Amino acid sequence: MRLTVAVTGMPGSGKSLVARIIAEVLEAPLYSMGDVVRREVVRRGLELTVENVERVATQLREELGKAAVAFLLLDEIRGVEGPIVVDGLRSLDEARVLSGRGRLCIVAVHASPLTRFKRMMARGRRDEIKGWRDLVLRDTKNLEYGIGGVIAMADYMIVNEGTMEEVEREARRIAERIRRGEGKDCSGGGSTPYGEH
Amino acid sequence: MRLTVAVTGMPGSGKSLVARIIAEVLEAPLYSMGDVVRREVVRRGLELTVENVERVATQLREELGKAAVAFLLLDEIRGVEGPIVVDGLRSLDEARVLSGRGRLCIVAVHASPLTRFKRMMARGRRDEIKGWRDLVLRDTKNLEYGIGGVIAMADYMIVNEGTMEEVEREARRIAERIRRGEGKDCSGGGSTPYGEH
Repeated sequence: MRLTVAVTGMPGSGKSLVARIIAEVLEAPLYSMGDVVRREVVRRGLELTVENVERVATQLREELGKAAVAFLLLDEIRGVEGPIVVDGLRSLDEARVLSGRGRLCIVAVHASPLTRFKRMMARGRRDEIKGWRDLVLRDTKNLEYGIGGVIAMADYMIVNEGTMEEVEREARRIAERIRRGEGKDCSGGGSTPYGEH
Repeated sequence: MRLTVAVTGMPGSGKSLVARIIAEVLEAPLYSMGDVVRREVVRRGLELTVENVERVATQLREELGKAAVAFLLLDEIRGVEGPIVVDGLRSLDEARVLSGRGRLCIVAVHASPLTRFKRMMARGRRDEIKGWRDLVLRDTKNLEYGIGGVIAMADYMIVNEGTMEEVEREARRIAERIRRGEGKDCSGGGSTPYGEH
């Protein structure tokens, strides 16, 4: 079964944790859209900075179209059979490309702007935000990519406003449902006509 | 307190039910963005058909900009003080306009495309969908308006995949939280800087 589970969510929503858990439950390899871009940054002989990652991501979209990163990922994993999990889906254009691999399930993780802000300020990583303005800038970048569309069309929505244990439990529950149903209740961002389920 | 609670969600997500319950809990008047457009259709001497509503909505945006319907609504309710509930927010542009009234809380209601499809087929109203293609067309229209952005930036997310009792309970719980906090944990689609909370 060439099932692809793609996880999306705004910065600080907790999508990477969710992607990790789903990969674990499905015993599937986990790929990160961000890593695809980071590898491309290195391949182009640039230093791995937040700015270069954003720049190369934009360049890739100019060169290969809106779904550039999805095309690169599919290229990297051409030989991989069975289910896979993808962390960091950012548009319905990317979803359409990924759905070319087989059935696609979109899992969105949501937290309010205020919750994400508090979480990212607490994490305080080098590439994280310093204030509300930084969050709005990062959010805007994601919204420009079209992340809103893919969140709106998600097959599963996980609300991550509570504890880490709660979101882990919910991710596990949804991963089990996807595994049992083999993604049959997924529309892959509307790309799967209902009759084909 | 000039609090505005705006409810958003894709067609068939159950947003109108949620909006009704929040209005009831807050004892606030309920306004519908769709009704604003429908009144404009009548004002222009046109028959109230689905096609005319979409046509006038598009015309309004061409004439008054992306947030046209929000401007018309604010105009209609100029004298209204206290909290209000708005059903049918469709973009961050509209959110920005509504946040001019005072504090803005965005509540998104989410159901998967497949759940919405089944629900709308079961409802079988005159203006509802006849097949998967109709759902995708209506979804696309909403995504073009920018509904994804406002869903992604929601202050509260209600997942409506279960029974009507479950979504009613969740809507009541969130309405109570908004009432107690007077919307202080709402960012209004990112338009409220964190410092001003």
